[in-house]
Amino acid sequence: MTGFHLNLSLLTPGHFRQAWRLPHVDPLAYLDIGHFERLAKAAEDAGIDAVFLGDGPALGAGIEHAPETGIDPLILLAHLSGATDRLGFVVTSSTTYNSPYNLARRFNALDHVSRGRAAVNIVTTGSPAAAANFGLDKHLDKETRYRRAHEFLDVVTRLWDAWEPGAVVADKESGRYADADLIHPVDHRGEFFSVRGPLPVPAGPQGRPVIVQAGGSEGGLSLAGEFADVVFTVAQTRSKAVAFREDVRRRAAAAGRDPDHVKISLGVVVLVSETEEEARQREQELYATLPLDRLAATVTANLGLSADTFGPDDVITIDDLPDAPPQGAFSAGFNESTRALIAERPRTPRELVHSSAGGAGHRLLVGSAEQVADDLENWFRAGAADGFTVMAADTAVDFENFTRLVVPILQRRGLFQKEYRATALRERYGLPRPRRARPAVRSA
Amino acid sequence: MTGFHLNLSLLTPGHFRQAWRLPHVDPLAYLDIGHFERLAKAAEDAGIDAVFLGDGPALGAGIEHAPETGIDPLILLAHLSGATDRLGFVVTSSTTYNSPYNLARRFNALDHVSRGRAAVNIVTTGSPAAAANFGLDKHLDKETRYRRAHEFLDVVTRLWDAWEPGAVVADKESGRYADADLIHPVDHRGEFFSVRGPLPVPAGPQGRPVIVQAGGSEGGLSLAGEFADVVFTVAQTRSKAVAFREDVRRRAAAAGRDPDHVKISLGVVVLVSETEEEARQREQELYATLPLDRLAATVTANLGLSADTFGPDDVITIDDLPDAPPQGAFSAGFNESTRALIAERPRTPRELVHSSAGGAGHRLLVGSAEQVADDLENWFRAGAADGFTVMAADTAVDFENFTRLVVPILQRRGLFQKEYRATALRERYGLPRPRRARPAVRSA
Repeated sequence: MTGFHLNLSLLTPGHFRQAWRLPHVDPLAYLDIGHFERLAKAAEDAGIDAVFLGDGPALGAGIEHAPETGIDPLILLAHLSGATDRLGFVVTSSTTYNSPYNLARRFNALDHVSRGRAAVNIVTTGSPAAAANFGLDKHLDKETRYRRAHEFLDVVTRLWDAWEPGAVVADKESGRYADADLIHPVDHRGEFFSVRGPLPVPAGPQGRPVIVQAGGSEGGLSLAGEFADVVFTVAQTRSKAVAFREDVRRRAAAAGRDPDHVKISLGVVVLVSETEEEARQREQELYATLPLDRLAATVTANLGLSADTFGPDDVITIDDLPDAPPQGAFSAGFNESTRALIAERPRTPRELVHSSAGGAGHRLLVGSAEQVADDLENWFRAGAADGFTVMAADTAVDFENFTRLVVPILQRRGLFQKEYRATALRERYGLPRPRRARPAVRSA
Repeated sequence: MTGFHLNLSLLTPGHFRQAWRLPHVDPLAYLDIGHFERLAKAAEDAGIDAVFLGDGPALGAGIEHAPETGIDPLILLAHLSGATDRLGFVVTSSTTYNSPYNLARRFNALDHVSRGRAAVNIVTTGSPAAAANFGLDKHLDKETRYRRAHEFLDVVTRLWDAWEPGAVVADKESGRYADADLIHPVDHRGEFFSVRGPLPVPAGPQGRPVIVQAGGSEGGLSLAGEFADVVFTVAQTRSKAVAFREDVRRRAAAAGRDPDHVKISLGVVVLVSETEEEARQREQELYATLPLDRLAATVTANLGLSADTFGPDDVITIDDLPDAPPQGAFSAGFNESTRALIAERPRTPRELVHSSAGGAGHRLLVGSAEQVADDLENWFRAGAADGFTVMAADTAVDFENFTRLVVPILQRRGLFQKEYRATALRERYGLPRPRRARPAVRSA
């Protein structure tokens, strides 16, 4: 048995958005590059495969209560690539609010400057607030966004592949630098984009940066089956996670790909201390920061129920839920995950808020380092994931506790790498190099 | 007398694009992040204010002969900000092929992660090849591009200013994080853009990143008068440079600004060695790399003349030139600069190619370190510039020769800082902080 990969989220102040209220937390840490540099170094010292940042290009109304979207993650992680040597970077970018040429070029650049440590986490951004920042009166519906994403990734991957091996000749005698016949325009004309190409420079060390896909809707899974190297997903129950992984592997096979070349990275919020007792105490302190009524009402509404009917402590059973989730911007993956939890046993909105670290959807895992390691091992051995994207409940404490306390246990058990075996993130994830991934250079 | 600022271009293999043909040059250095890291450290050790990279988002036909556009400069310089502490970064970005929200957000991010060392060099990109990468069948005419740039910078600067001081409250007791009344949407609806705003995070350490403007056309100068902190310009003759600086200062005053708050950074290509003899020998070796006939024909055509009439060694006088420069994508600043050179005395196309380091327009300065220092001091004392953007003729040699040989002379003469006096690039350039530049934080 080989082990699993580990990504760590840099989300600050933590997956509990109100963690900034705790006495030990600097409420401005999410603007402090020194904070992120310390996290990155701790992650690299522990041999973590990559750090991760989500994104949405807008300010939400929640800023009254907590920081939400932070510093642009592309620039933040490009900076951190200059302060580290082996750590990988998973940068979330929107196919709805970028142009394919700029995005292809910037991730090509991140792969060059990081020496092969770049991954792009593709999202389609279902937020009206983002739409209003980019000239759209109404945001695109989900089906249109995924159709655009499909065309977008088709263009981006072809831009990444445009320079054939051997295109750079660099013959000092004749003065011929490149063979233009081996550098192909993409000449794309589609529904959303017209892009001639090629990129100005050859591919970076990975050929293509790793492509991560994060949406759990039908459109997202279809996109993943065709393009994704890694699927970042959410699951509150183990059986749901196992079924999801099998579904993605089937879709990859149906798209003519080797299912082992699509890795599932399961999101999990970790609250970990030296002892279970301490972890449980910290759990209660974090719960106390939550604006519970507001979050409970949101969870209830996202399930298609009314907060007038279901108060924070009213039990919701699977029979209470509508057959289909409500239409709207809320994530299909998070919705399915919450429904599975209620199907397992009835829960109150308060419990749902707690078990998802404030209602954002990912499973909260609380315990001592041994307990956290046991849980990850259990889910991994059950076939629930190829690796985990670990999100700190309170980043000021849990990020370092995870790297310092949990990682060594996983290493002793042979579940996680003791040291970096390769610089290229693609190789560490066990992913193949795409066909044209060799450097486009004939000779040195 | 205060001294001048110094920026260094990272353009590789050098302002002589064919420098890759020289025996000592690695022809793939422009793809090698280790190369750029070494240059950045050499610049920082010398106290250089900022490193600079131009850009155009397309591959040109010249790739058969030499690397042109390189790795995306925004990502490359964000990476270098992680490998340095004091060096500034001037990143060229196009107002024609970016959206104002993304650009404002990314430079806000670069200012945060670099702790106040970010500058954006605004260009409008007059290249049909770039247009074809972004869905335009025909690139926008110059007047339209500058009208767009004007609206673009208006939106971007308002996005940078959107968080008032004190907007972040961070009251742990009440749970109130920010005062939304002090975070202003921009609510812009114009000819080219609709942008609601605000940015998700407050301004970085500089309030606004430094704005550099690089176009010498009427549209460019008008933009500079209103928005630019620094104007990056070209001049082949000292009197032309003095007149240009006076013109920009007049325009700033007419726009209601203090003329001392617009700095002129004059581009100059430097070829420098321990001795003049060695520099002159290297100059001949660099000339020998040039595809002279092709470059001479280009220079001739850019002046509005025919290469059939004027061969490489035919003398062009000021009377041969048409009254107005030819219409087209060629830079107005470079054109004016070349005409001024011919007005000084008649020149052959070969001479024009040589004196502009291959025909791209900036003045070539060749000599020993003392001679180069004398020349810069002479132009500075004459009022030709507030500082220089120095471009290495052959980056593999001249970048380090400049920092190692020329900078100490300038420091001894009191013309250049002996050490960094401030981290913020804005302060080092002697620029004021814009009105809302204080951190948007009420209390720690």
